[in-house]
Amino acid sequence: MKDFSFYTPTRVVFGRASEEQVGSLVSWYGGHRVLVHYGGGSAVRSGLVGKMLDLLHASGIATVELGGVVPNPLLSMVRRGIALCREQQVDFILAVGGGSVIDSAKAIAYGVPYDGDVWDFWAGKAVPQRALPVGCVLTIPAAGSEMSSSCVITHDELGLKRGVNSDLCRCRFAIMNPERTFTLPPYQTAAGAVDIMMHTMERYFCRYDDMALTDALAEGLLRTVKDSAVAVLRNPQDYVNRAQIMWAGSLAHNDLTECGYEKDFATHRLEHELSTLYDVTHGAGLAALWGSWARHVLPGHESRFAQFAVNVMGVTARYGDLPGTALRGIEAMEAFYCQLGMPTSIPELIGRPATPDEIALMVERCSRGGTMQLGSIERIDASAMATIYRAANQPRP
Amino acid sequence: MKDFSFYTPTRVVFGRASEEQVGSLVSWYGGHRVLVHYGGGSAVRSGLVGKMLDLLHASGIATVELGGVVPNPLLSMVRRGIALCREQQVDFILAVGGGSVIDSAKAIAYGVPYDGDVWDFWAGKAVPQRALPVGCVLTIPAAGSEMSSSCVITHDELGLKRGVNSDLCRCRFAIMNPERTFTLPPYQTAAGAVDIMMHTMERYFCRYDDMALTDALAEGLLRTVKDSAVAVLRNPQDYVNRAQIMWAGSLAHNDLTECGYEKDFATHRLEHELSTLYDVTHGAGLAALWGSWARHVLPGHESRFAQFAVNVMGVTARYGDLPGTALRGIEAMEAFYCQLGMPTSIPELIGRPATPDEIALMVERCSRGGTMQLGSIERIDASAMATIYRAANQPRP
Repeated sequence: MKDFSFYTPTRVVFGRASEEQVGSLVSWYGGHRVLVHYGGGSAVRSGLVGKMLDLLHASGIATVELGGVVPNPLLSMVRRGIALCREQQVDFILAVGGGSVIDSAKAIAYGVPYDGDVWDFWAGKAVPQRALPVGCVLTIPAAGSEMSSSCVITHDELGLKRGVNSDLCRCRFAIMNPERTFTLPPYQTAAGAVDIMMHTMERYFCRYDDMALTDALAEGLLRTVKDSAVAVLRNPQDYVNRAQIMWAGSLAHNDLTECGYEKDFATHRLEHELSTLYDVTHGAGLAALWGSWARHVLPGHESRFAQFAVNVMGVTARYGDLPGTALRGIEAMEAFYCQLGMPTSIPELIGRPATPDEIALMVERCSRGGTMQLGSIERIDASAMATIYRAANQPRP
Repeated sequence: MKDFSFYTPTRVVFGRASEEQVGSLVSWYGGHRVLVHYGGGSAVRSGLVGKMLDLLHASGIATVELGGVVPNPLLSMVRRGIALCREQQVDFILAVGGGSVIDSAKAIAYGVPYDGDVWDFWAGKAVPQRALPVGCVLTIPAAGSEMSSSCVITHDELGLKRGVNSDLCRCRFAIMNPERTFTLPPYQTAAGAVDIMMHTMERYFCRYDDMALTDALAEGLLRTVKDSAVAVLRNPQDYVNRAQIMWAGSLAHNDLTECGYEKDFATHRLEHELSTLYDVTHGAGLAALWGSWARHVLPGHESRFAQFAVNVMGVTARYGDLPGTALRGIEAMEAFYCQLGMPTSIPELIGRPATPDEIALMVERCSRGGTMQLGSIERIDASAMATIYRAANQPRP
């Protein structure tokens, strides 16, 4: 285990009645003129955006609206938001939606008080020093952005998807009503469960393996999401299981399951190139890649993968055959992805194999032209990236 | 499950190098004139208090010292601290020690900006509206006060031990170096483990039982502390297991294991009267009472206690005999207390049985003269309190 810090200042307000508190929460955190930021139709059609506007106005708070955030949120929208906030002297941003909307809101929050080009933060040319306060009303549990320090933005012109981490952008509050997730389509529900589990798995598989408490929390979280995902695909209005997934989404990415460990996030980085190139759903992209990544890094880490197999996937331990136990865990996860209707290869994900040129482009981008390696449990260089993409490009039986 | 809010703003800085950051942390949170508050000899003898003073001075921070906090911290000390802070215009309080020191610091923090008598907050006559900021350097993991909203103070003249909860007193930061716990005597180590586990058990046994994620986190935490407590009694300098216990102590009482549930805390309230009357160690008092409380509330809650037995205590499930499985879980916990050298009855705790008058006095105080009930999983009135105290007053075989 390594030394760690843990800082999760977001005030979580969770449950059926949580939305009613939006006005008092925004006021408590100093908001007077609020940008209400949202995505496409569903948050509007469901009446949620209208309800939030009404509640804010009833609390004497002025609002400005900006909708239209797309999955894999775009820099161009961030620039529009920054201009709007400056023009309207906005002092608080309320994101109503999922991770894309929250990340777009965070990026706007960084940009408003910054004199340079906001992309500087993702290009590594500057570090955020200030940000407008952000709060959120979460409708899609998956990205974990409601409690995380992460903000991932896609540069529409350069075709780059990049992340920035800073405590400055952690949401002041997160309102979570599991009922809002009843209408999530099965594919989005399943992809969300994959993403949630992956946020914890990206920390579980790292250079360390001796933090028993973090392991116990991570394994318990993973088992719960696994069970609850199957339950809500069967009954989309299962409140208790929707609630487990929603709360797990926050805990999986608020660093609780990282204490004493460190981020690997190689699978995430590899997937960012997939979703940038093919505009696929992030969680589905993760499912398509994970098994190939896991088999690649397995040698030397059989005991860790065996622990995962037994404690998370319910594989019967064969202590005399840890490599075999480990492999059965990877296979069990792929079977679980299949049960959820998620792909376990690139051809399943995009409907055809990736071309050699596409793989070369993804490796080029992911490795920053061969200059960057990924991962903690094993370092993944450009050559290993190509190996993993090619393995994931094989059709599964 | 019920709606919940979750708010843990304390910045945790954990590990061998954590103490070095005390100056920058106090400065970050606006401290210029700091009350350094501590207990008896060990924090001074070990050099920790001196090191903290040196580091604060090196950061240009002025300090005032107040030592001598005792276990079950006293109102008289709180009053001295308030007077000192006002006289010296202190703007930040740094607690160096365990839960008693932190609670004493929190109580001083409430009192400094309050015009009335500080005991008003514990007497229920006033609610804290403001508090000086508090940070801590934790040396005894048990009370969980470093991340909790709780503050328990004993009125030395009235012989009353009372708690107040408010987000205002949550520590701004908590520095935790597991090495500082190497020298904890076995009895204090064991009592700490009992207290840590009890903070989560007090939430696990409540009116609800359907929050699978909270269950998984709670059960994992309890299993970890159970294993680690045995390990550190065997080898007091086992860093990794000391670290598990220390971090578990925070997570057990920062409300993570309450999400969707609610506090029971009947055993804690019953114990407060024991430690007030006999000045015993809180964790030992909890161990002396828990089995008697558990047997009293068991009827009607066999499935919950059976889940605890299987998922925490490792009892083999007999699904056709949940009451038997449940009872074996309670017995297994008592056997574990025995293994730790902790009492499982009042005679073991104080060296003799409590007298009928003493039991009547504890019931009178605990029930506020018969006007108050305790608990969530079952309501405990004055008659039930007497039953539990009398059951715990029987010598164990």
